[in-house]
Amino acid sequence: MAKKPVKTRSKNSKVKKASNSAPSKKVVAGSSKVKRPKARVSTKDRKTLGELVSMADQVVLAARRKRDPHLDIPTRSLSNVKFNRRKRFIEMGKNTNRRLLFNLSQAKSYMQTMLVGSGCKQLIEQGKNTSIRGLYYMLKHTIDGTKENTFEEQSECDPVIEDVEVLLGSLREELHLYADKRGEMVGNLTLEDNGDLIDCARMGSGGYGIPSIVEPNVINFKKCTAKFVLHVEKGTVWQRFNEDKFWKKHNCILTHGAGQPPRGVRRLLNRMHNELNLPIFCLLDNDPWGYYIYSVIKQGSINLAYESQRMAIPKARFIGLRSKDYERCGLSPSVRIDLNENDRKRARQIMGYPWFEHKKAWQKEINLMLKNDFKLEVEALISKDISYVTEQYVPDRLADGDWLD
Amino acid sequence: MAKKPVKTRSKNSKVKKASNSAPSKKVVAGSSKVKRPKARVSTKDRKTLGELVSMADQVVLAARRKRDPHLDIPTRSLSNVKFNRRKRFIEMGKNTNRRLLFNLSQAKSYMQTMLVGSGCKQLIEQGKNTSIRGLYYMLKHTIDGTKENTFEEQSECDPVIEDVEVLLGSLREELHLYADKRGEMVGNLTLEDNGDLIDCARMGSGGYGIPSIVEPNVINFKKCTAKFVLHVEKGTVWQRFNEDKFWKKHNCILTHGAGQPPRGVRRLLNRMHNELNLPIFCLLDNDPWGYYIYSVIKQGSINLAYESQRMAIPKARFIGLRSKDYERCGLSPSVRIDLNENDRKRARQIMGYPWFEHKKAWQKEINLMLKNDFKLEVEALISKDISYVTEQYVPDRLADGDWLD
Repeated sequence: MAKKPVKTRSKNSKVKKASNSAPSKKVVAGSSKVKRPKARVSTKDRKTLGELVSMADQVVLAARRKRDPHLDIPTRSLSNVKFNRRKRFIEMGKNTNRRLLFNLSQAKSYMQTMLVGSGCKQLIEQGKNTSIRGLYYMLKHTIDGTKENTFEEQSECDPVIEDVEVLLGSLREELHLYADKRGEMVGNLTLEDNGDLIDCARMGSGGYGIPSIVEPNVINFKKCTAKFVLHVEKGTVWQRFNEDKFWKKHNCILTHGAGQPPRGVRRLLNRMHNELNLPIFCLLDNDPWGYYIYSVIKQGSINLAYESQRMAIPKARFIGLRSKDYERCGLSPSVRIDLNENDRKRARQIMGYPWFEHKKAWQKEINLMLKNDFKLEVEALISKDISYVTEQYVPDRLADGDWLD
Repeated sequence: MAKKPVKTRSKNSKVKKASNSAPSKKVVAGSSKVKRPKARVSTKDRKTLGELVSMADQVVLAARRKRDPHLDIPTRSLSNVKFNRRKRFIEMGKNTNRRLLFNLSQAKSYMQTMLVGSGCKQLIEQGKNTSIRGLYYMLKHTIDGTKENTFEEQSECDPVIEDVEVLLGSLREELHLYADKRGEMVGNLTLEDNGDLIDCARMGSGGYGIPSIVEPNVINFKKCTAKFVLHVEKGTVWQRFNEDKFWKKHNCILTHGAGQPPRGVRRLLNRMHNELNLPIFCLLDNDPWGYYIYSVIKQGSINLAYESQRMAIPKARFIGLRSKDYERCGLSPSVRIDLNENDRKRARQIMGYPWFEHKKAWQKEINLMLKNDFKLEVEALISKDISYVTEQYVPDRLADGDWLD
């Protein structure tokens, strides 16, 4: 807890050499030896900057009117999330929580919110991006004249970043923050990434690493002859499809997200779906985790409901694996993995999601998995033949129009 | 345990539809509906095939001589590993364990070894690769006439794969098995990947995804003007260096391995070092984990000592972070992360590694961390300035020749 009202930035701060033996010397975040010229700011960045500045202006305004500065932060909890049946994705409700500066239990988080805003402003002005861990380090410092740190752990900083996102209605990427980078892409698509022309049809076995920020200021689609996107769960499965040149034979784009796809992958899928008019097919495991990944791609994540508009793909299709595949594909009993209690619990939770609740096909799908009492991984198809998944399974599903949505 | 001598492959096996209600119908691994033509086999593959065939021939030979079939598998344990001071990497000793077919406690693992050999032979003949999970599924089946599975868990299969590797002296990649794919690359290098020309200087913010198999039959270096490789620990740090175009300013190649680099990244670093004569600089955290990553890159992993020859880079250099950086860079006390008991224990273990034991600079380095009693992440430098690490820290170390090796 801060012991006194806190300035987000000390005006006369200088970087001093802090040494191990003299821990009383403090360094103030945001100050730096390097005088960095302001970068050219894009129209989009200017909008975000405007939001950040007006957030700070409110403090001044409140002070002038002799009122307590406060922030009304949209509530990020299940109670304030609802499924929009028309748009078919999760949305945030209108509830907010007031955060006051002159309140002993809120002063620190108020200060942290302002700090995050100030850090993002610096990033945008410098035309730089950083990770959420980077921002944490950028802002972490011992407050002048106290032994109080602005943040103790990154886990204190992350929710404040999400607060600022919802407060300003800006995606994290617009605040110049990037997530960890995972996932790769190959296929019949040429795009421009920071001025470099990337032909995803000529990326060998390695593929193009999907960036964590894929907004139009970084990534522009140049030429696309592909007819759909096949998104697979794991990198090893992606390698199978790439090795078999599935994307060439079926004229598509092939992506993976190394498990639960990170934001960059989800946003890129969203953009390919909306801007290139490509259907998105998801090849995921027949287990609650696979269902959940699909649910997040399709309707957005409950925790980050405010991003659904630009992340969710309500028309994304689930192409497998299916609970009926054990019989349909004639799989060996040895590839079955027994469900555990947690799997059963998660499966029932997912069945109750508003976007699965009224879908007969999904209820049947999950019920059959529960009845089977086992799950199946995509890799289980290898027991048929190493390329069964690329030469038979997916082509058959596509030809028959046999998927869930 | 197998109840009777086991055939690795049933000659008259057919794929039968196994259904949930009829679990007695068995499917035999290796058989498949698809009659797959044999692929063109490269010289290197032919060598590996030869090794695999001679492994099987030994069974026939033993049978003809009316002797018990057996395999002498090099021992993969710390007791059979030694540091070769001349070559400066870890090597396996000459100890072997005999695995007998006609021994109740060894029959199953004998059968599993033969199965893995047979699976790899199929892969090579078909010109296909798969993951170790894929091979597990390929080989997993219920043995005809029993309720016994060839493998219960992947954890049973993985060590057998390593057994076959050491037995044949073949890298996993030569057995057509790939590891998970992590890590990216950008920089002044053009390479050929499966016939596609990849210019790593034109890969935008995303980068080229480093494949898991980077042997010369897949990856060929075409043109390299870079003078060194900078390998960083984490993807988020890599993004900072790529965003600041460090590799362009300093004419280098920039890689990361998403933590402990996977085999593909290590092997690629090794090839760039040996074939392109590039020094490898490693920018890792100032903590036991960072030291350990460096140790693996440099001397090889103890568990997989037999690969050192083609993976280890004894001349790899550790460019930071250093224990003295807290004072040298004037970092804020708030970026220090206290060591825990496990950190201290690991640090002392690493100090005792034969390749650090006699190095004064390394002893001093690790001792200072223990004396500091805190660790520092590369990201801590962001507290100085967002681009301090790319514009000052690394350039200064390079200019001063200030690194550990």
